[in-house]
Amino acid sequence: MELISIADVRAAAEDVAGTVLRTPLMPAPWDDGLWLKPENLQPVGSFKLRGATHAVARLDPATRGRGVVTHSSGNHGQALAYAARALGAPCTVVVPEGAPEIKVARMRALGADVRLVPPAGRLAEAERIAAGTGATLVPPFDHPAVIAGQGTVGLEIVSDLPDVDVVLVPVGGGGLGSGVATAVKSLRPSAAVIGVEPALAADARESLAAGEVVVWDVERTYRTCADGLRTSLSALTLAHLRDRLDGIVTVTEDEIMAATGRLLRDARLVAEPSGAVALAARLFHRDELPAGRTVAVVTGGNADPHVLSAALAQV
Amino acid sequence: MELISIADVRAAAEDVAGTVLRTPLMPAPWDDGLWLKPENLQPVGSFKLRGATHAVARLDPATRGRGVVTHSSGNHGQALAYAARALGAPCTVVVPEGAPEIKVARMRALGADVRLVPPAGRLAEAERIAAGTGATLVPPFDHPAVIAGQGTVGLEIVSDLPDVDVVLVPVGGGGLGSGVATAVKSLRPSAAVIGVEPALAADARESLAAGEVVVWDVERTYRTCADGLRTSLSALTLAHLRDRLDGIVTVTEDEIMAATGRLLRDARLVAEPSGAVALAARLFHRDELPAGRTVAVVTGGNADPHVLSAALAQV
Repeated sequence: MELISIADVRAAAEDVAGTVLRTPLMPAPWDDGLWLKPENLQPVGSFKLRGATHAVARLDPATRGRGVVTHSSGNHGQALAYAARALGAPCTVVVPEGAPEIKVARMRALGADVRLVPPAGRLAEAERIAAGTGATLVPPFDHPAVIAGQGTVGLEIVSDLPDVDVVLVPVGGGGLGSGVATAVKSLRPSAAVIGVEPALAADARESLAAGEVVVWDVERTYRTCADGLRTSLSALTLAHLRDRLDGIVTVTEDEIMAATGRLLRDARLVAEPSGAVALAARLFHRDELPAGRTVAVVTGGNADPHVLSAALAQV
Repeated sequence: MELISIADVRAAAEDVAGTVLRTPLMPAPWDDGLWLKPENLQPVGSFKLRGATHAVARLDPATRGRGVVTHSSGNHGQALAYAARALGAPCTVVVPEGAPEIKVARMRALGADVRLVPPAGRLAEAERIAAGTGATLVPPFDHPAVIAGQGTVGLEIVSDLPDVDVVLVPVGGGGLGSGVATAVKSLRPSAAVIGVEPALAADARESLAAGEVVVWDVERTYRTCADGLRTSLSALTLAHLRDRLDGIVTVTEDEIMAATGRLLRDARLVAEPSGAVALAARLFHRDELPAGRTVAVVTGGNADPHVLSAALAQV
């Protein structure tokens, strides 16, 4: 299986420059050896905008004009809607009936054509639309261009902190980890890139140990509050992570909420629980991590108000 | 009275580069003509770090070695403690008895020598310490170096958005407004710099109208939730604002809380109420503002948890 290269990530960096926010590295006020990469500050509230933007930007004008389509109702759906609007492409997002109204409303506000279908029929509907209209299917992580786009996070980290020792990155489908590890290990081989996932959705750790994609069923993964990290790896992301990731650490639900509260109180960042797991690893599992100058990627900030209230209650 | 110049702001920019976060301009997702300058992301949670850092950095080594002292228990106190630690200067902060424990603890954690005195004796005690130890008094806004440091916010705004039309800046003591107006009006004379203050602490508007510093008594200014904006101008900041500010807009308490909630929900930023007034002006007083590409400075994020809970309740 062909893996992406640092050249792919550099090409993505050129594509995303006009659309994606160049986020700073924030020194954590409570920890002299920790920096935060606040991807929750992206216009749609997550790093997903990077991969989506690169995936749209690399289409030739005729293909782009036929539009893009996806079946993610989460952060990727909003990211693709935003990227498509910014780059002048029509966008369709297939969403399961019963998805939160606010998410549907936000995608529609970005100009996306939102199609509500029964949950089980999402992928088939997206593929049907792509076949019928010539639109390009842009999946949330299982695509080289999406992975290369997410990798620009790693490029920026090494650019801002050239002597970084450890990069902590949340792992759901594995697109971000694949891209970041590609960039960081290429530019600074001595740095360790460590994936972090909830103990209640530790399928990536299990997949890496087994050497094949292990899928946890929905009943298991839906126990975690980190709803962005319930996804399984794909063969493509597993291949990247096996080759380039230095390890996986898991965190508990209490640790995730404590990290979410810490970000609110002491870093003035609104993170969703999925976005706080990397910090949770630094706060509560430091003995399992390599030593040195550490970056925790805060991946997203689309938290429900009741989740934020719960995190605030811990402050 | 001598005003600071753009050269002073440029000199400050060199001084603060190693200590202060280069904050990005964030496009507001809900408003195509609005960008946020998130100074709440500074290590101590406010733009005050800029002025404090420049004020410490410009001291010659011998003077710096004798330390710095201030009498602000708010964001400036924490900022000076942080800047002094970063630049190797001893720091004393004189704090009124009864100040929140968390603020005292944070300044002590930054290595500051915190002295608790009766509220009325703060300034005298700071002056006594300065006279006795040779430490340099660094006031929160009434000082050319502090104003020049805050002005680096304006320098960065014009650098990131060269065709900016309107800059909205909260006004308390007026240090930030003085510095930002100096930078912006010098680099882009056609842009308007508008101050924003709570209607319940509208002493700056009254001072500008009167042509002299008008002081509102504490009973009046303490009605606003924007505790960072209760301060009066000084002769020095009034002189800058008269010369360079294009106007003042006032906002209500409800508008301030709504803007704080909007920042939490849609920009994923934790702002204190004082930090949200510029956005409140854009949201609720657009008809009083010049048209065009607008930047709202989000000045600080040290909000009490109960304030954030109240803002979340509006979401």
